[in-house]
Amino acid sequence: MYDVSVPVFSERLKALGIVLAKAEANAVERKIDPQTFLTARLAPDMLTLTSQVQIATDSAKGAPCRLAGREVPRYEDNETTFAELHARLAKTRDLLATFTPADFEGSDERTIAMKLGSYDIQMPGLRYLLDVAMPNFYFHVTTAYAILRHNGVPLGKANFLGRE
Amino acid sequence: MYDVSVPVFSERLKALGIVLAKAEANAVERKIDPQTFLTARLAPDMLTLTSQVQIATDSAKGAPCRLAGREVPRYEDNETTFAELHARLAKTRDLLATFTPADFEGSDERTIAMKLGSYDIQMPGLRYLLDVAMPNFYFHVTTAYAILRHNGVPLGKANFLGRE
Repeated sequence: MYDVSVPVFSERLKALGIVLAKAEANAVERKIDPQTFLTARLAPDMLTLTSQVQIATDSAKGAPCRLAGREVPRYEDNETTFAELHARLAKTRDLLATFTPADFEGSDERTIAMKLGSYDIQMPGLRYLLDVAMPNFYFHVTTAYAILRHNGVPLGKANFLGRE
Repeated sequence: MYDVSVPVFSERLKALGIVLAKAEANAVERKIDPQTFLTARLAPDMLTLTSQVQIATDSAKGAPCRLAGREVPRYEDNETTFAELHARLAKTRDLLATFTPADFEGSDERTIAMKLGSYDIQMPGLRYLLDVAMPNFYFHVTTAYAILRHNGVPLGKANFLGRE
């Protein structure tokens, strides 16, 4: 359960940091206000880039904490700059680094119960991780990338996968 | 390795089928040529909806076959309709249904070597699955959804997660 969660979240957030750094550099190069990227959406009723990054980190901290029986730390959701998003990624990766495989002993079978939007979820830890937490996490990480690509930031799949 | 791959690929492809069905119904309702959705992209140098679905199924068949030491079946990549994309999803899910946990014995440590774009990849099966195959898979499944949301198809995260 550790192998399938902690290093995955950590590496994907690291890659998201690379994507965001390239976006910020591109904003400077094209003389675009960084807010234009940070508040961009793919549809009027979809969330902004900033929210996508915030929710990605929420999944990355929430799932391991729930599986390990720790309280999920609350973040303020008050980031308004690329620097603050990077700090949020770093804070989340620091939290992930505190977990060990022993923290996840038995978590595959233990029941996880939570509210997800308007749905009550109750399922074994393994299915919660693979069918709820991971799809949610990847949804927001990928949408963040897609928002930037849609806005002309020169990114490739290799960056998404973690290459500088 | 089975638990972390086969049911995940299968359930996500099932959810992608729900998303595509809603897109097709929406095209009918708005009197939009289905080709408009099928050939839509988020950026001129990104792939079309059809390609996103094709590549998602490529990941979903490729990873389990490589891990289980089976030859990866080749698909023609000639789908041009929603019906053909649904058939491709079904064919891939049928293939996934032929795997058993025993097929993946020892695959977490066995070395997987392949070309990914212009990169040579060589890593233990567990890391290949979690750091290459899954991110790639989710990338294309999410981008398919994002293309449709960007085109005004009424979809929500619940559909992405597999609710009708």
